[in-house]
Amino acid sequence: MHSSPSLKSDNLRERLVVRRLTMAHPGDLSALAALLDAGEMAANDIVAVIGKTEGNGGVNDFTRGYFTQSLMALLARHTGKPAEALLRQVPCVLSGGTEGVLSPHYVVFARTSEPASGSGGALAIGTAISAPLPAHDIGRWAHVRSAAAAVRAAMDQAGIERPEDVRFVQLKCPCVTSARAQQAAAIGQTVRTADPGRSMAYARAAGAFGTAVALGEMPDDPRLEGAMLEDFSLGSFRASISSGVEVDAIEAIVLGHSERWQGPLRMGCAPMQDALDIAGVTEAVREIGLLASPQLAPPDAARVAAVFVKCEPDRRGLVRGMRHTMLDDTDINAQRHIRGAVGGLVAGVLGETQIFVSGGAEHQGPDGGGLVAVIAHVVD
Amino acid sequence: MHSSPSLKSDNLRERLVVRRLTMAHPGDLSALAALLDAGEMAANDIVAVIGKTEGNGGVNDFTRGYFTQSLMALLARHTGKPAEALLRQVPCVLSGGTEGVLSPHYVVFARTSEPASGSGGALAIGTAISAPLPAHDIGRWAHVRSAAAAVRAAMDQAGIERPEDVRFVQLKCPCVTSARAQQAAAIGQTVRTADPGRSMAYARAAGAFGTAVALGEMPDDPRLEGAMLEDFSLGSFRASISSGVEVDAIEAIVLGHSERWQGPLRMGCAPMQDALDIAGVTEAVREIGLLASPQLAPPDAARVAAVFVKCEPDRRGLVRGMRHTMLDDTDINAQRHIRGAVGGLVAGVLGETQIFVSGGAEHQGPDGGGLVAVIAHVVD
Amino acid sequence: MHSSPSLKSDNLRERLVVRRLTMAHPGDLSALAALLDAGEMAANDIVAVIGKTEGNGGVNDFTRGYFTQSLMALLARHTGKPAEALLRQVPCVLSGGTEGVLSPHYVVFARTSEPASGSGGALAIGTAISAPLPAHDIGRWAHVRSAAAAVRAAMDQAGIERPEDVRFVQLKCPCVTSARAQQAAAIGQTVRTADPGRSMAYARAAGAFGTAVALGEMPDDPRLEGAMLEDFSLGSFRASISSGVEVDAIEAIVLGHSERWQGPLRMGCAPMQDALDIAGVTEAVREIGLLASPQLAPPDAARVAAVFVKCEPDRRGLVRGMRHTMLDDTDINAQRHIRGAVGGLVAGVLGETQIFVSGGAEHQGPDGGGLVAVIAHVVD
Amino acid sequence: MHSSPSLKSDNLRERLVVRRLTMAHPGDLSALAALLDAGEMAANDIVAVIGKTEGNGGVNDFTRGYFTQSLMALLARHTGKPAEALLRQVPCVLSGGTEGVLSPHYVVFARTSEPASGSGGALAIGTAISAPLPAHDIGRWAHVRSAAAAVRAAMDQAGIERPEDVRFVQLKCPCVTSARAQQAAAIGQTVRTADPGRSMAYARAAGAFGTAVALGEMPDDPRLEGAMLEDFSLGSFRASISSGVEVDAIEAIVLGHSERWQGPLRMGCAPMQDALDIAGVTEAVREIGLLASPQLAPPDAARVAAVFVKCEPDRRGLVRGMRHTMLDDTDINAQRHIRGAVGGLVAGVLGETQIFVSGGAEHQGPDGGGLVAVIAHVVD
Repeated sequence: MHSSPSLKSDNLRERLVVRRLTMAHPGDLSALAALLDAGEMAANDIVAVIGKTEGNGGVNDFTRGYFTQSLMALLARHTGKPAEALLRQVPCVLSGGTEGVLSPHYVVFARTSEPASGSGGALAIGTAISAPLPAHDIGRWAHVRSAAAAVRAAMDQAGIERPEDVRFVQLKCPCVTSARAQQAAAIGQTVRTADPGRSMAYARAAGAFGTAVALGEMPDDPRLEGAMLEDFSLGSFRASISSGVEVDAIEAIVLGHSERWQGPLRMGCAPMQDALDIAGVTEAVREIGLLASPQLAPPDAARVAAVFVKCEPDRRGLVRGMRHTMLDDTDINAQRHIRGAVGGLVAGVLGETQIFVSGGAEHQGPDGGGLVAVIAHVVD
Repeated sequence: MHSSPSLKSDNLRERLVVRRLTMAHPGDLSALAALLDAGEMAANDIVAVIGKTEGNGGVNDFTRGYFTQSLMALLARHTGKPAEALLRQVPCVLSGGTEGVLSPHYVVFARTSEPASGSGGALAIGTAISAPLPAHDIGRWAHVRSAAAAVRAAMDQAGIERPEDVRFVQLKCPCVTSARAQQAAAIGQTVRTADPGRSMAYARAAGAFGTAVALGEMPDDPRLEGAMLEDFSLGSFRASISSGVEVDAIEAIVLGHSERWQGPLRMGCAPMQDALDIAGVTEAVREIGLLASPQLAPPDAARVAAVFVKCEPDRRGLVRGMRHTMLDDTDINAQRHIRGAVGGLVAGVLGETQIFVSGGAEHQGPDGGGLVAVIAHVVD
Repeated sequence: MHSSPSLKSDNLRERLVVRRLTMAHPGDLSALAALLDAGEMAANDIVAVIGKTEGNGGVNDFTRGYFTQSLMALLARHTGKPAEALLRQVPCVLSGGTEGVLSPHYVVFARTSEPASGSGGALAIGTAISAPLPAHDIGRWAHVRSAAAAVRAAMDQAGIERPEDVRFVQLKCPCVTSARAQQAAAIGQTVRTADPGRSMAYARAAGAFGTAVALGEMPDDPRLEGAMLEDFSLGSFRASISSGVEVDAIEAIVLGHSERWQGPLRMGCAPMQDALDIAGVTEAVREIGLLASPQLAPPDAARVAAVFVKCEPDRRGLVRGMRHTMLDDTDINAQRHIRGAVGGLVAGVLGETQIFVSGGAEHQGPDGGGLVAVIAHVVD
Repeated sequence: MHSSPSLKSDNLRERLVVRRLTMAHPGDLSALAALLDAGEMAANDIVAVIGKTEGNGGVNDFTRGYFTQSLMALLARHTGKPAEALLRQVPCVLSGGTEGVLSPHYVVFARTSEPASGSGGALAIGTAISAPLPAHDIGRWAHVRSAAAAVRAAMDQAGIERPEDVRFVQLKCPCVTSARAQQAAAIGQTVRTADPGRSMAYARAAGAFGTAVALGEMPDDPRLEGAMLEDFSLGSFRASISSGVEVDAIEAIVLGHSERWQGPLRMGCAPMQDALDIAGVTEAVREIGLLASPQLAPPDAARVAAVFVKCEPDRRGLVRGMRHTMLDDTDINAQRHIRGAVGGLVAGVLGETQIFVSGGAEHQGPDGGGLVAVIAHVVD
């Protein structure tokens, strides 16, 4: 488990800096380069990046790889570390697809420390990267346990002591590829499924279960392995899980509130019962003191630092009892459909379009719904 | 100008019946057939249909033709009139594309008369079909005048006396095809543009200008011809215009309030300043006494009879200052993107998904925005 | 089993008429209407239609339903029979998707009889429609047997005595829908798979196995049920199988040579080893005396009456050892990719674009390949 | 004009090395890295790269940028030159879109010199990069002249003395973007068109005209400016032009035969009259002594080193008199359609799938057709 030790001096507190930046294309890191060049942010302080690139979000979406290569090359130039090492150190979670009004952007998380001032308590971040997960463990209980351990390690690093203080967990989990399935077979092991799409869904399910275990929302009981992709009442409403061939270990980013941190940032998170649950969006911002009535007023909108949404095309083919056509569309992938629709709704409530909206929300919110999480500068 | 005379007896009032029906596929008229078979609606009372089919909304969207053929065959069986005659008599305006959460459906408008009861005043409908529009007139001032005349004829038929009582004008205008351009050339005429997509845009512009002229929002001044697709401050915020190769005349459906009608239906209409203008949506329902806070409560939602939306992918490439990617997407048409996003927003406010969302909103709302119109049963 | 008795008079012979017609859109039957109006073809002689419409070929391709509705309405007007009855009597097999150079068209097969002249022997057609297939039988050996019986009945009707004289078998098989799966469960039965896409693949496999059984290429051995979608060396290289929700029985069209028929038509059929197997195409035309070197010369091209192709995106991800990207493309369905590519190849050899190219070729040709069949007027 | 001096020693001859390499994804340069690491090729010898990446080939195809960034980073590591300088020195022309059977790949051209052996005469390469082209010159005669000068400079560098010895000219031309149009306006200039798609077409036309001028196929007559995109009988059947926002100058790669070079490589090039012109393909290989009957036999196929194709969806909507549906498809871009179809045809004749197929063939072959060019090892 890779998880750097957290700062623990009595006279210092940690501070999270969140910068949401625009990009002109998936290889454009000029906004971050400008911050680094201007000394507004130090490359060595950057602990994680979450971004939305303008690809299709599918298997053949190379905007994620293009962005990651560009990011790591930039950080390598500024830190002197090799890009390959940075890849293993700085989680970079990307979701492809800026359907509808969504705007390509990325959120950079940096951690600094400073003399304690006043009473503590602010948004904290921790990250962790697990040991490589063998292919035959993917989507099984070993995967759940590895994810839970990564979440706990990241909580520990962040100094978040109570599970209820965690607001948002972003994981990236490996999935089975045909090459990995063959390697598993070569050592006498079988994979849960060799179908890549299905494997990604199991990986997301295992990540959500692992988050639930770490947050005390679910017991660590291997008999629940069969509930993955079956019992959608299980999981965590604070989990946002992605899965991809590009990782072989679990990467974890945990955000929550801790007394050991200070600064103006707070985070709200609320489930969305379905794709029309506008009240879920207003609840997420209300939790941190912002009012959408029906839209965030400009002063409140200016406080928003980042927004993360998970959503799903309802697998039963209905939204509020009426047929939707997302799952049967041969022209447009169902995840593209739902990202565009839910993105349009959240953008309308928040009055802005730099929103991270990701599909594949199994066990990460109510069945057929998802969740919405907002970071804002709530203290002046 | 085809426009049936309106009923004018002193002891009778007209009544609008609006039924919003589901379809399992674009050839499925079983819901209307059931109403007709059960005697709940008379085929001869049907004056217009507006619907949303699950095609791509583009040139090769045949779901509109499939639905129209099925509808006219059904009405032919029930009225004894030939389908060809019904096509010229009952405007049927379809928008293809149920992106995101949108649900395929159609709205049937029927007009009946009944003894006057209490004070009058309710939602009224009028329709008109112009004489065929020569190809060389399309997108020019003659088109504007023909559209204005059709709107006035429909207002007259509906008994809507004051322009301010009109709530919503739906037009379908012809566009130039290569065959029509050649016919125009053969008689020594030129068309405004031979590019089909551009011609459809000019046709929508002319329809919006014609609506504005009829409603007194714009002078009947041919010098304004050059303002089409140039000066987006002109037009009408109550116009919803579609254009297609399948018509050679202008078909008009006008909805508004009239003292000569009675019944529970009222209609609200409000512009949307841009694709995030959630306040436009709440204003449209507030106008007829419904409250979305943030979503219509179930009792109010149950009152909604039909919803119509026009929207546009902002042609300047920005939404609230941030880049969108709709116009540069080679995989998904920009109109599909924006319908999905704005559909998601309106659906979230109204709590339902049977919403007619149509793109191509030039001059039919604020530049980069559009409009939203709602019919509801506001009197018990 | 519905299969009309064949004509057996000693002094008469049957004659197949094949007309390949263009369409301007999926509801355009004007070319056939003109033939019927001109008396060039009698509606009652029409026994089958195979066509290519310009949809996406997927679940939400409504061009097939639109065409079928339009065709049956036309035949109903000309025969006086209700459209519903004609649907059960005249197999109409459509493949959506005219990717690349392919041109929308349909092939009408009519059967007439006439006094015998000279020695017999010509292309013959037979059709059959099985009893409805219960959902729990779909993709199982009962499906294979039902398909085999339908093929034998169609052969018998056609007067094709020897299996080796069969050139081409087109079947349309039902698949499992969620509604049908529930009905099966209600009577205590299970379906082979509830996944619609997988069910369609099993249905195609069962149709191909049934054809192979009827043609003596495979034993009627239920133990081979497990070979479906597993052992791709089994099946028939003369089978072209489609599957769809719109049928509940197996529809069969068999084409082959019979002494009881006369006329100029003959048919060639050859397997394609893979998507590049141009020699398969030249072999199919060579079999009936036409030479492509490299393209059919205009006089020979003028003899071609209809062309049918089955093909597949190689499921192993390679064509001749090189990676293809069809299976991983989130923007364009893999079947659309392969139809466009193989259609381009066959069109280049034949020098024309009215080619029926259908995907989903499991067990209907070599693994990763498919087949090509050509009808031509080979006798002047 | 950037164009490195060519080697001119009496005792040395130049030799072209062409390596066609596979890629697992658009950022995968491992095949070239392996060649460089093994010393099989020297990075400093590489003069040009032409490749086919698996994007959509449209405005939002970022696979080209991803590949280019990865390539230049690799070359920078091996040459010690900065990537920015290499971008201006090594033309890298990419076409996005591996529709159908096409396989992602790239062709690396390297130039070495060696002692003269036997009589000279072999395939030669020259490259040139023009001065930046002002936006107001794009698609005008100044663009034609600049392109002609670049082609001549590249011919000179290659030592190709006679225009008839040129086999293939690949240009990449800049196009007008909205930013560039504004810059032009700021200095009192107007652009030929501000529509990006139209500007790219004009840029390709100007590149083709420039090639024709350089090759003596067309006079250098500014009065022909109006013939661009109008008179499709003009242009060059040896020109392959791409246009993109990523360049501000004209990049030229010229391939042809020269006495100053030696080695086994020769190149054939033939026009395709339309998308079905299989004889054009066989002619291109016949020109260099290879026989396709109907497909290249394996020994001849093994000689092929690279294949380049240009093609177009016929703008008149017909292929050999029959309607195609490419231009009206809202789901799949027309260029993707035609690349898949023509790619399938050429792949079938050559028996392989690593083929560079590019759309946008205005003036680069017969109207509605294109061209095909093949490099092969014809001398053992």
